[in-house]
Amino acid sequence: MSGTRSPAADVETRASNDDHDALRAWLRLLATTNSIEALVRGRLQSGYATTLARFDYLAQLERDPDGLRMRDLSSRLMVTRGNVTGLTDSLEKEGLVIREADAEDGRGFRVRLTAAGRRAFRAMAVEHERWIVDVFAVLSERELRQLRELLGRVKSHARDLGRNAS
Amino acid sequence: MSGTRSPAADVETRASNDDHDALRAWLRLLATTNSIEALVRGRLQSGYATTLARFDYLAQLERDPDGLRMRDLSSRLMVTRGNVTGLTDSLEKEGLVIREADAEDGRGFRVRLTAAGRRAFRAMAVEHERWIVDVFAVLSERELRQLRELLGRVKSHARDLGRNAS
Repeated sequence: MSGTRSPAADVETRASNDDHDALRAWLRLLATTNSIEALVRGRLQSGYATTLARFDYLAQLERDPDGLRMRDLSSRLMVTRGNVTGLTDSLEKEGLVIREADAEDGRGFRVRLTAAGRRAFRAMAVEHERWIVDVFAVLSERELRQLRELLGRVKSHARDLGRNAS
Repeated sequence: MSGTRSPAADVETRASNDDHDALRAWLRLLATTNSIEALVRGRLQSGYATTLARFDYLAQLERDPDGLRMRDLSSRLMVTRGNVTGLTDSLEKEGLVIREADAEDGRGFRVRLTAAGRRAFRAMAVEHERWIVDVFAVLSERELRQLRELLGRVKSHARDLGRNAS
C-alpha cells in the first residue's frame, strides 16, 4: 500500500480465502509494517509534536557529523527535493539544523545538525528504540533471530528479482 | 520510512552495530517491505505503464461490485480525498471506472469498476500474484508459515500498543 499509513486500515483484510499463501504473507508483512509505523507516528506526534518525516530527516543527519548535501538527503529519504527544502526550512527556523554553502559545489548546500538538533534527536531516538523494543518483546530472542533470518532471505531475493527483470 | 519507496535506498544500512536487536529487526522489516513494493512498482510500470496507487485503487473496487463511496475509498487507501479525486478522474477517462450519484447520499458519489476495468484489473492481479509468489518462493512452505505466524504476533502486539497509549 502506498502513501501514509494509519492504524485504522488493515491491508490484511484484503486477503480472501482463495488467495495464495504467498500473497497472504505479503499482505501480513505490509500490515505489520503499517502497524509499527502507525505506532511510531502516533507517539512522535503525542510525545514530541513531530512527524515521522522529521524524525527520519534528523536520523539521516545524525549519522553524518559533517552534514549532507540536500540532494543526497533527498535520495536517502526517498522524498522529493521540494519536500526536503520544506523540512529544512522548518527545522532551520527551530534551530535544529543549519544550511551551509557546499565547499565542493558552489551552487549547492549542505545541511547539518546543530548541537540543539543533536540533543533533540537523541532524546527522541532513545524513546523510539524503546517503542520498537516493546513491539518485538512479544517474540523470544530465538524467534526474533528467526524472523530476521527469514526476512533477510526474502529481502535479498526481492532485490535480486527487482534488479534482473523490472 | 515514510513516502514512496525506491529500490536504491536500503533503510537497513541505517542500523549500526550497537543498535538493539529489535531495532535491527524493525529496519529489516521495513527494508523487506520497501524491496517488495519497489519490485511491484517497477513491474506495474514496465508491464502496464501504471502505478501502485492505481493498482491499489482498482483492488479496492474489485472487492465491492456495488462500488464504494469516494470517502470510503479515500480512507481505505489511506490517501487524501484530493488524491482519490485525481485518480478517479484519470481512471474514468480511460473507461476503467465510473462515478455515479450515491442513492443514499444526495451530495456524494460512488465509484465502481466498469467491465473493462474489471478485466484490466484481473489481468494485472494474476501477474501481481505471480510476482509475490516468486518473491516468497525463497522460503519453504514451513518457513512461510513460520514467517506469517511471527509477523502475526508482532502485528497484533503493535496494534495493541498503538491503541493503548499513543
